[in-house]
Order: sequence, then C-alpha cells, then structure tokens
Amino acid sequence: MITRKEAERLDASDPLAPLRDRFVLPDGLVYLDGNSLGAMPKAVPARVAGAVSREWGEGLVRSWNDAGWIDLPRRVGDRIARLVGAGPGEVVCTDSTSVNVFKVLSAALALRPGRSTILSEEGNFPTDLYMAEGLARLVGDGRRLRLVPKGEILSALDGDTAVLLLTHVDYRTGERHDLPAVTRAAHAAGALAIWDLAHTAGAMPVDLTASGADFAVGCGYKYLCGGPGAPAFLWVAPRNQETFVQPLSGWLGHAEPFAFEPGYRPAAGVSRFLCGTPPILSMTALDAALDVLLEADLALVRGKSERLTSFFVEAVEQLCGDAVRLVSPREPSRRGSQVSFSHPDGYAVMRALVARGVVGDFRAPDVLRFGFAPLYVRFVDAWDAAGALAEVLSSHAHERPEFRLRSAVT
Amino acid sequence: MITRKEAERLDASDPLAPLRDRFVLPDGLVYLDGNSLGAMPKAVPARVAGAVSREWGEGLVRSWNDAGWIDLPRRVGDRIARLVGAGPGEVVCTDSTSVNVFKVLSAALALRPGRSTILSEEGNFPTDLYMAEGLARLVGDGRRLRLVPKGEILSALDGDTAVLLLTHVDYRTGERHDLPAVTRAAHAAGALAIWDLAHTAGAMPVDLTASGADFAVGCGYKYLCGGPGAPAFLWVAPRNQETFVQPLSGWLGHAEPFAFEPGYRPAAGVSRFLCGTPPILSMTALDAALDVLLEADLALVRGKSERLTSFFVEAVEQLCGDAVRLVSPREPSRRGSQVSFSHPDGYAVMRALVARGVVGDFRAPDVLRFGFAPLYVRFVDAWDAAGALAEVLSSHAHERPEFRLRSAVT
Repeated sequence: MITRKEAERLDASDPLAPLRDRFVLPDGLVYLDGNSLGAMPKAVPARVAGAVSREWGEGLVRSWNDAGWIDLPRRVGDRIARLVGAGPGEVVCTDSTSVNVFKVLSAALALRPGRSTILSEEGNFPTDLYMAEGLARLVGDGRRLRLVPKGEILSALDGDTAVLLLTHVDYRTGERHDLPAVTRAAHAAGALAIWDLAHTAGAMPVDLTASGADFAVGCGYKYLCGGPGAPAFLWVAPRNQETFVQPLSGWLGHAEPFAFEPGYRPAAGVSRFLCGTPPILSMTALDAALDVLLEADLALVRGKSERLTSFFVEAVEQLCGDAVRLVSPREPSRRGSQVSFSHPDGYAVMRALVARGVVGDFRAPDVLRFGFAPLYVRFVDAWDAAGALAEVLSSHAHERPEFRLRSAVT
Repeated sequence: MITRKEAERLDASDPLAPLRDRFVLPDGLVYLDGNSLGAMPKAVPARVAGAVSREWGEGLVRSWNDAGWIDLPRRVGDRIARLVGAGPGEVVCTDSTSVNVFKVLSAALALRPGRSTILSEEGNFPTDLYMAEGLARLVGDGRRLRLVPKGEILSALDGDTAVLLLTHVDYRTGERHDLPAVTRAAHAAGALAIWDLAHTAGAMPVDLTASGADFAVGCGYKYLCGGPGAPAFLWVAPRNQETFVQPLSGWLGHAEPFAFEPGYRPAAGVSRFLCGTPPILSMTALDAALDVLLEADLALVRGKSERLTSFFVEAVEQLCGDAVRLVSPREPSRRGSQVSFSHPDGYAVMRALVARGVVGDFRAPDVLRFGFAPLYVRFVDAWDAAGALAEVLSSHAHERPEFRLRSAVT
C-alpha cells in the first residue's frame, strides 16, 4: 500500500524538484496536461514583453538585424537540437508540426522515386496522417498512405515502402516505439524513417544522430513549454539536407532572400526547410522556455518520469480498483511520460476531474490521459490526482449532466 | 514651392491625425517602413501580456475553450474580411503568406484540370513565385510557372492559363493593378485569379466580393500592424470554398479535429484551409492591432494616402532635384501607399538615412522605398524625410564606408 507520505518522501529526494519553482502553476491545480500544452516558465512574460515593446515597438523593422530575428529559427533550432541528440545546423524552428510533416515527407518520397507507399500506423496522431494523405493525393502517380496496426508495422515494410512515418510516443496510450530498432528495420527494407517527436522532446532523451533516422519533426508547445501554438521544429540528417528542394520553398529558405530573385535557389543545409516569415513573438516565448529545459539533465528527467508514471499507476490501481483500465504499457521503459486509463464514460469523468482541479485530457473514444512533465509535476500531484479520480468514480460525480456537455475542444 | 508650414497645415486638417496617438512611435524617428513591419499599436503589449500570463499561465490548456483560442483564426479572419470587402466565414487567419499561396494555388490548379500554366509577373514578390515553382515541380504533369513583365500580363492570358497569380500593389515600385479589370480579363480567358494583398490590406479599401476574384492571401505584419511575422490571412470566394480539399490538410481544417479520425474529412467552408495549431500569442497581437485598424474609415485612409505620397514626391523632387528618380507611378490612383525612388547607390543611401532617423527600406537593385501608413504617418514626416534625403545626397554621407557594409536583412 502506498500513501501520500510516500509521495512526499519521493518529492523530497527528487533532484529536479527545485525546477518546479521556475514555472507558473496556479494554486490548487494539479496539472497533468503538459503533453497538450506545457506550463509556462516564469521567464516567459518578461521575454515576450521585451520582444513586443522593445524589439518591435522601439526597434521596429531594425530588429530583424539588431535583435537577431532573422536567425531566430536557426538559433532556437540549434537549442532544440541539444534535446534530441542532433548537431548544430540540423534543426530549424519553423511553421507547425503539420506543415513540417509535409516538407520532410515530400523530401523522403523524392529520395525513393521507385516506391509508392508511405507507411504509418492507424493510431498515429491524425494530423500526420492527414498531411500524408494530402501529399499523396497532390503528387498522385500511385503514391498512397498505407495504415496498419502498431503490431504489424515491421511486417508491413516491403519493397514498395518509400518511407515509414511514425510518432515515437503514442499520443493516446503513451506507448513508445523502439526508435533505433524500427529505424533499422525501415532501412533494411530500403525505406526512410521519419519520426514525430511531439511527445518526446523535452520529456526524455533521444539520440537522433545515433539512431540513423532520416528526418524528424516535433512540437514546441507540449513538453518544450513554448506556449499555445508555439512554432514546431524539424530535423534533417546532414546526409539528406541537400538532396532535395522541398516544395514549400518560401523566401526564407532561399539562398539569398534579400536578393529578391524571381527564381528559387535553396539555402545551404537545413535552412532550405524554412518557408515564410516566422511568428517572432510566439518563437520568442519558446526560446525563453528553452532556458529552463536546457538546464535539466535528460537522464534525470527520464528517471523521474518513469518513477512518477509508475507511482501514478500504482496509486490509481490501489484507490480505484478495476473501475478504470490501464491502457499504457505497464513496463515503464515501454512508455513515454504519460499514463492513460480507459473508462466507458471517459469524457464526463475527465470533465468532473477538471472541475475538481485535476487537469488531464480526454482522447476519443474512452481514454483518460495524464501527462507527467517531469520538470514541474510532483509525486504528490500524482497521488492527489489518483485520489480525485477515485472520488469522482465512487461518488458517480461524472454522471451529472453538466459534465456530459461537449465543449469546442474536447 | 512647398514648405514645412504646408505640411503642418495638412496635418492640422487631417481627420485621421488623432489615430497616430494609438501607436508607439519612438521619439525622433520618421518611420516610413510600415509596409515592411507596421508600427505597434499601444493596445498590443497589455493584450499579449494577458494572453501570456492569464490565458496561458493561469488558464493553461483550458484556454482553448475558455479564452476562445480554438476560434481565433476564424474570429481574426472575420475582422480582416471587413478590411478587404469580404463577408464573414470567407477569411481565416493562418500560417504565413507563403504557405497560404501554396494552398490557394493548389485549389486553383485543381479547379482548372485541363490547363497547365500558372501565370505571374517577373516582378511579383519572390516568395509567391517560389511557392508556385515548388508546387508546379511537386505536381509535375506539365504544370509550370510562366513569368512575364507587368505590361504583358493581359496578352499572356491564354487557353492554357489555369490561374493568374498577382500582387495587387508592387512591393518595389508601389504600382497598383486594376484588380477588378485584371480579374475580368483572367476570367474571360477561362483562368482563375489569385490576389496577394500584402501591400493592400489596411492601407486602402479593396472589394474582393465585387471584384469577382477567386482567392486572396495577405500579410498580417505590414499595414495590419500585427507584429513581426504575424500570421497571414487567406480569402476564398464562397463559390470556391468547398470545391476542393487543399493538400495542406492539417487537423484544424478537419470537420471534427477532436474526433481523432485516421482519415481526413474537410471542415465546411473556409475552415478547411486551416492546417496545424496556430501561434496564439502572435495572432493575439494581430487581433489587438485590428481594433485600431477597424476604427478608421478606409475611404479617408485612401484619401490621406494619396495626398501624403503626392506630397512626398513633390517634396523630394523640390529638395533633391534629379539626384533620385521616381519609380512609382506619378498618378496617385495608380499606386499603393508607398513611393519609391531609385539611386544607383541606393543601399548606402538608405543606411545613411536610417542613421539620421529616417527609416525606409531598400529593395535590390537600386530602390529606395518609403511606405506611408496613413494611420500614423504625418505630412511633416514626409517633409522631414525628404529633407534628410536631400541632406544625405548633398553631403555625400552615403559614401562613407560604414553605410556600405551589408547587414543580414537588407
């Protein structure tokens, strides 16, 4: 039997515990949705205010040079690179994850001209699949998106597979692919490997370089804490960077944007994956957030994440019995930094939890998703969330009509 | 002979003069680059700070519903619609102008399946051309971008022209196309018309609906004053909205994003032109800026713009003689809200002007570009800028080596 005392003891010996104070966390809230929108680092408001009032308001257009806006996508990219095992000049911060999927998928298809299939899994995050579908339809010529269940991915790789497009950590279940092993399997079949690191970057170490992967994309507003809709990132293995001119060839990916030439000449390196003018204010928030992200030792982050999620599984099963069913892998090494349980009335249960100050997320059809951002979530939060869940379920609070009403974002 | 007194008199009788106080304009600076980056409305810092600290920091993920983030692209789009003669539900604020060009161009090509040519002009803003080039290369199948000089556009329209892609106001010369007439000519040739309103929206009225145009895109950070890299906008004529599924089919353009279906089903109306998660902080700055934009009567804005640019032309020609050459149309009705002069040493001349507190812009190869945002630029600014230009040229200040050094953004 575990107890709240045990949670307090674990927090007291947590080497990352001091970092929690670097984030704004509203009083009385247990925030377990950092994998949808990360909490705000305290350094952000002043940095954004400076970009607004000093850089834009006073500096005006001169800030493209004087405040270094023009290099911000590369500077932020180089900082994110350190979190995903990539080198300088390999990552840019740009556009949305969706748009970046389109860019790297175009490049991958072009590098495998004899092959028609984009292979992915049915449960991949939908926007990745929608972008692949859009690209295949646009390119035509027999290109198609093929979806298989998670367990059939390796056996589905064949001589027609141009590229394997996967998300490292499943947004619904938290199950984590073995990135290096799956990459090797894709390569053995002659395919390229694209990884979506939306639920990875900032929550655990990953070594893109050592993995041999080809391309990666990821999200700026989940564990990277860059704020709502923060720009995304994109990694291209150096060997692939100059093999192809990606089709979203906007002016900031041009070799000389300010030469204003009528014809496109791609910039050297990963910069050719930039497109239009980046949203500087949103990117500044992400840049400020990375200060605290880059202070944490990712091995400690991962260690805490495994202990925290395991503690939550144990607490829920102890306090809720079989009213909910674990859908994340029980083995901590096989999951990301989240734990999901299913409940037939999951949507209303999550609404009732939120009303009690425990913010997780619901994912259709029946998944209660709890994210554990190791930089600011405590063991007592895990305990209190499990307690609140037990209370909702035993009191049938979720059966009240106000929790059944659907809101715009569910 | 005009004088500074005349400028003061014109300012005193300007009905838009009170609006200048709604913008931050650094002391001693004459800012004539609002067509590169608009000045900051004073309301912006508090609105952005609220989105950062209250909506994100305190509200966290709940703000997607509670602060209405999920509808922000449509709400801001509906507000921009009022500035460009479009109706509600016809405009969304999303992505960059470049990305939006790709979306609407894909749609236009699909609507003219038997035709291969994207027609544009050599002097169009390069990113529009680069995106068209990227799309044509990706789609293949004989699709091509054809560029002609401005004067040959109408005669180049033929039975193979799928779409005519033009920028309403030339970024270099300020020359303005007759949007309704050119649209009619495109339609008469069986082609569709896409307009880039980057140098139009917020500076003058335009009536997209009455023009019969098919699609438009535009920029959030020039005359709309949305801040560096503010998200762009996109308009689709109602008759074209549901004819095609655009290829950048990200989850926020899905009919039910939060159903997390593996297959893409486009949202109704213009929402299907949304893609990934939008940069909320940057979009909030634009939303705040639109408050002041929407207060001004666009007929007054255009009237002032014509008088202001004419006054500047007259002042420069009076004070500088033939040291510079007017490259904008002399007839005010034929230009946008900018005036450009050429000088063989234009880059250094502009650097020397900026050092004197007059901020315009240089555009290769030899263009000195002066933007007159009618909401905050005064007649005395036009006079003082002309005076500073005369001073630079007569003192040969631009021949000093420090003004010849190229910076990252030129």
